[in-house]
Amino acid sequence: MTVTPRVTVWNEFIHERHNEAVTRLYPQGIHTVLADALRAHGLAEVSTATLDEPEHGLSEKRLAATDVLLWWGHKAHAEVPDAVVERVKRRVTEGGMGFAPLHSAHLSKPFLALMGTGCFLKYRVAGETERLWVVDPGHPVAAGIGEMIELAQEEMYGEPFHVPPPDELVFVSWFKGGEVFRSGCGWRRGLGRIFYFRPGHETFPTYHDPRIQRVIANAVRWVAPPQDLATPVRGPREPLEPLA
Amino acid sequence: MTVTPRVTVWNEFIHERHNEAVTRLYPQGIHTVLADALRAHGLAEVSTATLDEPEHGLSEKRLAATDVLLWWGHKAHAEVPDAVVERVKRRVTEGGMGFAPLHSAHLSKPFLALMGTGCFLKYRVAGETERLWVVDPGHPVAAGIGEMIELAQEEMYGEPFHVPPPDELVFVSWFKGGEVFRSGCGWRRGLGRIFYFRPGHETFPTYHDPRIQRVIANAVRWVAPPQDLATPVRGPREPLEPLA
Amino acid sequence: MTVTPRVTVWNEFIHERHNEAVTRLYPQGIHTVLADALRAHGLAEVSTATLDEPEHGLSEKRLAATDVLLWWGHKAHAEVPDAVVERVKRRVTEGGMGFAPLHSAHLSKPFLALMGTGCFLKYRVAGETERLWVVDPGHPVAAGIGEMIELAQEEMYGEPFHVPPPDELVFVSWFKGGEVFRSGCGWRRGLGRIFYFRPGHETFPTYHDPRIQRVIANAVRWVAPPQDLATPVRGPREPLEPLA
Amino acid sequence: MTVTPRVTVWNEFIHERHNEAVTRLYPQGIHTVLADALRAHGLAEVSTATLDEPEHGLSEKRLAATDVLLWWGHKAHAEVPDAVVERVKRRVTEGGMGFAPLHSAHLSKPFLALMGTGCFLKYRVAGETERLWVVDPGHPVAAGIGEMIELAQEEMYGEPFHVPPPDELVFVSWFKGGEVFRSGCGWRRGLGRIFYFRPGHETFPTYHDPRIQRVIANAVRWVAPPQDLATPVRGPREPLEPLA
Repeated sequence: MTVTPRVTVWNEFIHERHNEAVTRLYPQGIHTVLADALRAHGLAEVSTATLDEPEHGLSEKRLAATDVLLWWGHKAHAEVPDAVVERVKRRVTEGGMGFAPLHSAHLSKPFLALMGTGCFLKYRVAGETERLWVVDPGHPVAAGIGEMIELAQEEMYGEPFHVPPPDELVFVSWFKGGEVFRSGCGWRRGLGRIFYFRPGHETFPTYHDPRIQRVIANAVRWVAPPQDLATPVRGPREPLEPLA
Repeated sequence: MTVTPRVTVWNEFIHERHNEAVTRLYPQGIHTVLADALRAHGLAEVSTATLDEPEHGLSEKRLAATDVLLWWGHKAHAEVPDAVVERVKRRVTEGGMGFAPLHSAHLSKPFLALMGTGCFLKYRVAGETERLWVVDPGHPVAAGIGEMIELAQEEMYGEPFHVPPPDELVFVSWFKGGEVFRSGCGWRRGLGRIFYFRPGHETFPTYHDPRIQRVIANAVRWVAPPQDLATPVRGPREPLEPLA
Repeated sequence: MTVTPRVTVWNEFIHERHNEAVTRLYPQGIHTVLADALRAHGLAEVSTATLDEPEHGLSEKRLAATDVLLWWGHKAHAEVPDAVVERVKRRVTEGGMGFAPLHSAHLSKPFLALMGTGCFLKYRVAGETERLWVVDPGHPVAAGIGEMIELAQEEMYGEPFHVPPPDELVFVSWFKGGEVFRSGCGWRRGLGRIFYFRPGHETFPTYHDPRIQRVIANAVRWVAPPQDLATPVRGPREPLEPLA
Repeated sequence: MTVTPRVTVWNEFIHERHNEAVTRLYPQGIHTVLADALRAHGLAEVSTATLDEPEHGLSEKRLAATDVLLWWGHKAHAEVPDAVVERVKRRVTEGGMGFAPLHSAHLSKPFLALMGTGCFLKYRVAGETERLWVVDPGHPVAAGIGEMIELAQEEMYGEPFHVPPPDELVFVSWFKGGEVFRSGCGWRRGLGRIFYFRPGHETFPTYHDPRIQRVIANAVRWVAPPQDLATPVRGPREPLEPLA
């Protein structure tokens, strides 16, 4: 395994600068809180990137130096150019970069491109109780969590979540208002791994929660590529055995 | 596909004869209600079997003439002999018989033998609301159901459900008391298919519900073996190509 | 299940008109041979479509009247416009249309969009022996096939096949020259099912083989949508339970 | 992740003492070669156990101190008592111990109990070429291997391999004589992980091969349980929310 994966926390960083309630919760942005949390969990090489940087913080060079990319976006999905989306997708599927879309990143363009489905769902912002139940207690992403995480106030996301069947399902959420949701889902896509983690609406203090931070640190380690990854050989081939 | 699968509804048939409240709901037994429901859904060859019949209603001959076996049991799991369990398991994995354990059959010996795990869970009989959300709306077992089934009163089953990752997950339940459960799970095991469907506590009228009956009829069709099933070849083999 | 799925066999139909060897094998086109084979297997509503028809034979109206789309393409993948690709993808994931890409359609644009990966592989056209081994003898797509299909002459495709892990793996190919390939793969994507079937290089008589025709007829039935498919509800939702 | 998993290499250790050709290849037993190889790969806590030890080397105490159990057996599967099998199975599914059955351990009793299927296959001992192709190049168990491993002489195992669909498929073998086999398969079962790796017939020097050793070391790390594993809560539960 990569001993020290190089992590980039990407954030569109809009709500935090234009919505006072969000500014109070995340004055330096969600990405900063997440980066600090990952460092506190022993991930030594963590940096951040935002939509308003050159090439949206996602240049070829930057991606080539990233082993795990976290993604938070909501209002500005459409502002990420298709060329950047294709770059991220290739870096995952052909380069083995791990990808961890968070909360409303279910509609981010890279996630849509990697899933091949609409990724839509039901939703309600009512500040209701969410319980994230661990359905796979042996899974590395659930390590240290116990049986569930209760959040006093979150946005509701409801099934059907229009994604391919997860290769690994770790969390299922219960919502006070009556719905359920597959909240922690892993997929393998080409050389790379993807982990979607549901909670994290910007008007709630979710990313300050130490259990949520633990899950995200676990997820980073789980999606990080192994060392000695081979580049898949493709194209025309000579036979290895006589054909006659 | 088998046009008319031969279905056997097996029931331990104990609660219905010894618990007055259950007798009122299912005077002829849960198996009779289920068999009638399946016939009403166009399954023409449905019969029943119970624990107190010779060989517990599960002789070699009987199983050989069964394409789909439904199973309801709760109090008397231990009374099913290991030889019968082995017979059922082989008929599924080597003969392609479909198997549909219902509710408390999660601890039936054939299901345990087919899963290889403990199949335990949390539970509470409090007559609380359950909502079975469809998480895979394209799945044949969910056909005709819409987005969910609400049951006014059911037993709660809670995660973690200690089973192998389902090959197909169709329903996830929400319970009023705060838990979730993977309530409709499909597995492929050798030549056979298995579908576990959660609701059906004996003190509630669940199996009289037309939506529940539709799901069970769908499940019977989904686990029924295809026609022209091949017997897997095994053992020593001559080479098909020269080795030198 | 859909008793009579409406099947459209789509073909780019180029090799058959410009390469004499292919013309001899498929004078009316691969699509015509496949359509006739499906009709002979009891599929009553089969029609064909080709690249040079208006809207490439894939208008909204045409797709809306198609339950299962087969796809053969090789030279002209790029000529299928993105809008048509998006249309096909949505008809699969949101409408439940089955999709069966054949052979070199692994690089067709709809398949790429649905998979989210590069779908590349190794290849060699040397007319070598292929054996398609059934690895899941209980699977409906393998019904009637026995243990394997041997083809005297085919193009080689070699691993790694750069696709998401198949939800269901039915065939694995052995090639004389030394390679293997996952040749029959099923995926579930939103409301729809996908089955990729490898053999079918245009310079070999593969699609005239009755066993190959049987597999393709099986695959059509397996990807066909169930009746009573629900449209997934999405968007904002009122709570079903009091939140206070 | 467990930084240093405690590994036990279990071997029935019969062929090596009674078959001269095998003695020459593995004078101290297959387990000794494997244990040395794992130590050379940085796994510091490796010990061995054999069938003829008290409690067959698999006492409760021994298993409780084992994070990963490798298993080689062939002639004497039946000599492992059911109580030991149950103990191993529970230690995997409820304690999270990793389990790595090798070669003919496909018919070992713990593997059969964990799979729930017959685990049979075709075979031929003819010393033919095997190529183990990597079908999932991003998988940690394939790290450092490149595109395939070629073994000059091995026993053939042929499909269908009568196991549940692997949760992760890493290697598919090509055999000179015409067959294929899913040679590297991962499953998750309760808290534990299982990796089956096919090659290793006792009359060939397979376990001396550095690439085979690398795969087995990778597999040990992949099946090792994460740290901070929770014990799944089960049984009766009070509601978390008011039911009225």
